[in-house]
Amino acid sequence: MTSSTDPINNLAQLIACPSVTPAEGGALTTLEAMLAPLGFSVERPTFSEDGTPDVENLYARRSGNGPHLMFAGHTDVVPVGDAAAWTYPPFSAAIHKGEMYGRGAVDMKGGIACFAAAVARHIAKNGALKGSISFLITGDEEGPSINGTSKLLEWAKARGETWDAAIVGEPTNPDKLGDMIKIGRRGSLSGTVTVHGVQGHAAYPHLADSPVRGLVTLVDSLLYPAFDKGTKNFQATNLEVTTIDVGNPAVNVIPAKATATFNIRFNDTWTDETLMAEIHNRLDKASGRRKLRPGRKTPVNYELVWRDRPSHVFLTHDEKLIGTLTASVEAVTGKRPQLSTSGGTSDARFIKDYCPVVEFGLVGQTMHMVDERVAVADLETLTQIYERFIADFFA
Amino acid sequence: MTSSTDPINNLAQLIACPSVTPAEGGALTTLEAMLAPLGFSVERPTFSEDGTPDVENLYARRSGNGPHLMFAGHTDVVPVGDAAAWTYPPFSAAIHKGEMYGRGAVDMKGGIACFAAAVARHIAKNGALKGSISFLITGDEEGPSINGTSKLLEWAKARGETWDAAIVGEPTNPDKLGDMIKIGRRGSLSGTVTVHGVQGHAAYPHLADSPVRGLVTLVDSLLYPAFDKGTKNFQATNLEVTTIDVGNPAVNVIPAKATATFNIRFNDTWTDETLMAEIHNRLDKASGRRKLRPGRKTPVNYELVWRDRPSHVFLTHDEKLIGTLTASVEAVTGKRPQLSTSGGTSDARFIKDYCPVVEFGLVGQTMHMVDERVAVADLETLTQIYERFIADFFA
Repeated sequence: MTSSTDPINNLAQLIACPSVTPAEGGALTTLEAMLAPLGFSVERPTFSEDGTPDVENLYARRSGNGPHLMFAGHTDVVPVGDAAAWTYPPFSAAIHKGEMYGRGAVDMKGGIACFAAAVARHIAKNGALKGSISFLITGDEEGPSINGTSKLLEWAKARGETWDAAIVGEPTNPDKLGDMIKIGRRGSLSGTVTVHGVQGHAAYPHLADSPVRGLVTLVDSLLYPAFDKGTKNFQATNLEVTTIDVGNPAVNVIPAKATATFNIRFNDTWTDETLMAEIHNRLDKASGRRKLRPGRKTPVNYELVWRDRPSHVFLTHDEKLIGTLTASVEAVTGKRPQLSTSGGTSDARFIKDYCPVVEFGLVGQTMHMVDERVAVADLETLTQIYERFIADFFA
Repeated sequence: MTSSTDPINNLAQLIACPSVTPAEGGALTTLEAMLAPLGFSVERPTFSEDGTPDVENLYARRSGNGPHLMFAGHTDVVPVGDAAAWTYPPFSAAIHKGEMYGRGAVDMKGGIACFAAAVARHIAKNGALKGSISFLITGDEEGPSINGTSKLLEWAKARGETWDAAIVGEPTNPDKLGDMIKIGRRGSLSGTVTVHGVQGHAAYPHLADSPVRGLVTLVDSLLYPAFDKGTKNFQATNLEVTTIDVGNPAVNVIPAKATATFNIRFNDTWTDETLMAEIHNRLDKASGRRKLRPGRKTPVNYELVWRDRPSHVFLTHDEKLIGTLTASVEAVTGKRPQLSTSGGTSDARFIKDYCPVVEFGLVGQTMHMVDERVAVADLETLTQIYERFIADFFA
């Protein structure tokens, strides 16, 4: 066995690389050094446009006769926050009381370390693969996600790459390893509503037009009624107004402008398009553009700007893939994982357009926090789950 | 006749004093020089406390046998704004096409200039007064209004001063001289509501508690339903939310805190106390402190802080005083003025606790604006109205 079979050693090497987005920090080079000896041909494409900074990516494939399994993930990490508040330096991979500390320990250098170890063990036991395995790894998941997974998939497809299934190694377990597999994700959509009023003195409201009054009406129409009650596989769609801002310091002045920004996490009742239409419909109705509201001479003068790109909602229907992963988790942990679509978005939203995708990784409790850390025992357990999954997938 | 009988000359002298609050700028000294030759004994009390800067004030009385009439006003002015945007320098009192330009021309050095001229003419014609006239003038009306009229009244009362009636020389006419007398003022009350929530990720709203959602509910309860429909002498009470602020730049984060500030202009349906109680009632009900709202585990966690001092609502009931002023306006202008309680607050809110008070002055259209100016013809007309009023008051 090469040293890659040890997930603890793999993770320690990866944590030591300060790969805060968009820095590569040596993380992809370290991974390349793990995979090349296992027979993977490694490429390091970089993409750039839209004025966003370049980020590095990695695509490694070991080919064989049979189906093609993709493991997807990212080596970039979020900033360390207050470095002085960490019990151990955030890139030290210090182990204390059975836990390894470090930025990226669970999100998600740990998942990569375990999958690399699982592949190394599988090859050590079986020699040739009964198919192909590829690592599709980006350095741009925690950043704008523009020059990462999305472009890497297009790039590979243009070279004729196809996949039969994909597994993403994001931390999916809320509490204990084996709790949860993700089989889909809600969509995400954000927008900013600006209401233009007419500034004036608070004592003469008839000479002004309060944009705050207009905005509150519009925000109300976004919050209520609820969009749906949830579906078989998904939580109810939820809209949060994340900020409202006016910035008027004068208590006797009616301001000229007010803005609100919202974010919606939506289920498979909707597509981006139908949900955007619903939002426009609610705002047009509440603003009085269709039919003037009592007490107003003109409709509320608003504009809506969509922010970022929407994340599409998706649900994986490949029962065999889901069943294989579920059985692997159960065989190793003794627990039957919940099949969930909860939580935020992940790069699986891009992969689902190329092949069926499931997600399983470590316990996410400390992700993005000071003292991010992983139970060393979990690294061995996850490696065993991945190894079992690889074996069953190619069986 | 002394030169004080000319309101145009009086006003030019007063405008030349750059008395932007809290600066005296020579304005009170100039007024003192006008009044002393007319037989007024002039005092210049200054008050200070609450950490607010000192401002100068003036109290001038000419005594006689009979009733005591107070003329009240202020020599301080608001800042000039963009000085370069003025057609004539803001303290130059330049006359162009029948209008005198200058900061304070209508608000309200013009009113003082006219009343001083009216008194000078009355004395020149009649010799002794059949009563007493006093000027109660502050340099703190456009500022915090703490060390001005309010304290000046207390100071005079402590010395045994009493008044039978007061006239305030604020610009009361919306369009043409003679349009409007103010016989009361709405009250004003302001507060800031802060909602404390629990910060979290927009994808996990059940782990957070959105303060924006809570605040929108509370703001709704302040805006609707309307407080009243207005009364015989007053417009309807009106509440404006002047600002809402969260300041959260992250679209995927539910923030921890949200604030809204409101200002209410209220009529004689309410007192400060009953209106404050109504606001607390609405907020407690909407927040779920009394009865939890569906979908919430705890009431909305809010705090309400009242801002500044409330301005009391008042209405003058002295029919003789109102009738005398109305008749004077009608005799000089040929128009019967509207008796109004509209608009913002004025120092009359303090005077009403000492004697009946009415307000009449110039046309307010350009007040607080660049190129504040007054029609020179209006200065003569207003002087004649004041002179007639003085004559009738003491008749």
